[in-house]
Amino acid sequence: MDRILLAHGSGGKLYHQLIEEVFLPAFGNKHLNQLNDSAVCPVANGLIAMTTDSFVVQPLFFPGGDIGRLAVCGTVNDLAMSGATPRYLTLGMIIEADFPFADLKKICASIAEAASEAGVQIVTGDTKVVQKGHGDGIYINTAGVGELSEALDLSQRTIEAGDVIICSGEIASHGIAVMAAREGLGLKPAPLSDVAPLNGLAKALLTVVPQTKALRDPTRGGLASTLNEWAEKAGLTIEIEEEALPINKGVAATCELLGLDPLYVANEGKLLACVPAESADIALAALRSHQYGVKAAIIGKVTKDTAGRLQLATPYGGTRIIDIPAGELLPRIC
Amino acid sequence: MDRILLAHGSGGKLYHQLIEEVFLPAFGNKHLNQLNDSAVCPVANGLIAMTTDSFVVQPLFFPGGDIGRLAVCGTVNDLAMSGATPRYLTLGMIIEADFPFADLKKICASIAEAASEAGVQIVTGDTKVVQKGHGDGIYINTAGVGELSEALDLSQRTIEAGDVIICSGEIASHGIAVMAAREGLGLKPAPLSDVAPLNGLAKALLTVVPQTKALRDPTRGGLASTLNEWAEKAGLTIEIEEEALPINKGVAATCELLGLDPLYVANEGKLLACVPAESADIALAALRSHQYGVKAAIIGKVTKDTAGRLQLATPYGGTRIIDIPAGELLPRIC
Repeated sequence: MDRILLAHGSGGKLYHQLIEEVFLPAFGNKHLNQLNDSAVCPVANGLIAMTTDSFVVQPLFFPGGDIGRLAVCGTVNDLAMSGATPRYLTLGMIIEADFPFADLKKICASIAEAASEAGVQIVTGDTKVVQKGHGDGIYINTAGVGELSEALDLSQRTIEAGDVIICSGEIASHGIAVMAAREGLGLKPAPLSDVAPLNGLAKALLTVVPQTKALRDPTRGGLASTLNEWAEKAGLTIEIEEEALPINKGVAATCELLGLDPLYVANEGKLLACVPAESADIALAALRSHQYGVKAAIIGKVTKDTAGRLQLATPYGGTRIIDIPAGELLPRIC
Repeated sequence: MDRILLAHGSGGKLYHQLIEEVFLPAFGNKHLNQLNDSAVCPVANGLIAMTTDSFVVQPLFFPGGDIGRLAVCGTVNDLAMSGATPRYLTLGMIIEADFPFADLKKICASIAEAASEAGVQIVTGDTKVVQKGHGDGIYINTAGVGELSEALDLSQRTIEAGDVIICSGEIASHGIAVMAAREGLGLKPAPLSDVAPLNGLAKALLTVVPQTKALRDPTRGGLASTLNEWAEKAGLTIEIEEEALPINKGVAATCELLGLDPLYVANEGKLLACVPAESADIALAALRSHQYGVKAAIIGKVTKDTAGRLQLATPYGGTRIIDIPAGELLPRIC
């Protein structure tokens, strides 16, 4: 049998076979191996972070990653951005009948590898199979639980004029990689997605700058979305400098070719931080010392202007307002 | 605007509007209202239960419930069956473009009502929109976290000969209700799904019979699946009596009409328990005192036979082996 059947989602023999032959070999751990409806897991300190994300990316495999790595990293990163240590993931799959077993196994291997890198366990899961034509290959949901020793105030409410905005590396590469793969642009070299677990990077930052005021991985909607939200919550304007934005040359060229503004393109392995000016250097050093933050840069600052918006300073001395994206620029990139 | 657009899943303006206008009014609570990527929630005792389920039921609305109530109850029940007190849910939606807003709002209202009944909060969520033709209306994933004061041994490993099997009420009504609605069978009265949160019922049982050996809500695959698993894990045969099985007359007639064995049909508001014989009466009384357990009944017992299988004793004095279902009897019922 080399393709998924409806009966693989039935709760019967083939369902159990799928678990025994595909999921347990890929993800097995003492929690998952119980195969109970719920996993019972220890947590420290009485405070947890919870998050969820569904992944509908097309294509499922793209340069630099696949839907499996994305599903782990997306949830790990959401937990990490709250200051939590990601611990446990749940894994919900909706598979279209006739999906190739070989692809499912590749995706599971990728999930296992990313989970191992991030130090999290898949503790429980669920699989549904829908008829051919009623899905789109595979959709994956992950939900995650992280441990917090104390609630950090990363709520953006303490952002004030003079604070510094740091970006952990080159922007827009995930969205462009998926877009190029989907549209068959045939770019050489193909742009690579940055999809990566950021819990180590976030910890490196928060350990030395616990007074970090805001932390976010700018995924859907890109930098523009995240920084607009921060500016609005703080009631202050954030000004970023176009020349300071780290961006890969090939990605920048592709954005220009396609008429896309990289500020709106999704990232899956970058974080934005807002830190007090006096902590900016130590924050930058901490990020740069980590493999996923080597190209970290200060990209802007919070100004006194109370308009609560995002402005871009161009190399020519002008500024323009970068609004929150209104429509759908790049569907199905995560 | 009365239909979902791709841009509602973009992370941009329409996405925020969807959150502000639909999700927050339906589910708002202090955790969700933060609108951070993760919700930070307190938990007691350092032990949590985690579970996840995706829901792909067709039709989305059926007599007795809808995909929203199902998505809450399914996850609440999985947590409750581990002895946990369900506390927090995550909510992941994959919506097909062009889905009616009015239906989304109905589903959200139903989610809110079921969550309120079960005493759980929706603390974080995620919404993706896929192109028309690439989904199926709406798919919903919920993951849940429950609190445990101590890990109960509901692992079925302590099941022994003489133990009693109790079912909390009439079987097979969910699967038949969905099937009848989907196939337009036009039955009068239409069979009603039993979809309900079982945390109160489970607690009522576990409070008086903490030595309960196994507890499960028999969803996909029905009673046959759950009891086969228990028999196999225990290495003992479970014998149930056909005449003792609670079943609604209309449901039984529909099963006969369609050639379906009610033992294989999904339930969404029933639990099975395995308890020591000496606790059977008190267990039964506890279940019957709860609104969702009024028709609870002892349906069978664990025998000394070490074949590890499920047997049905017929009214005529015979027995037949009830195997784990091999194929897909009723697709898309949860």
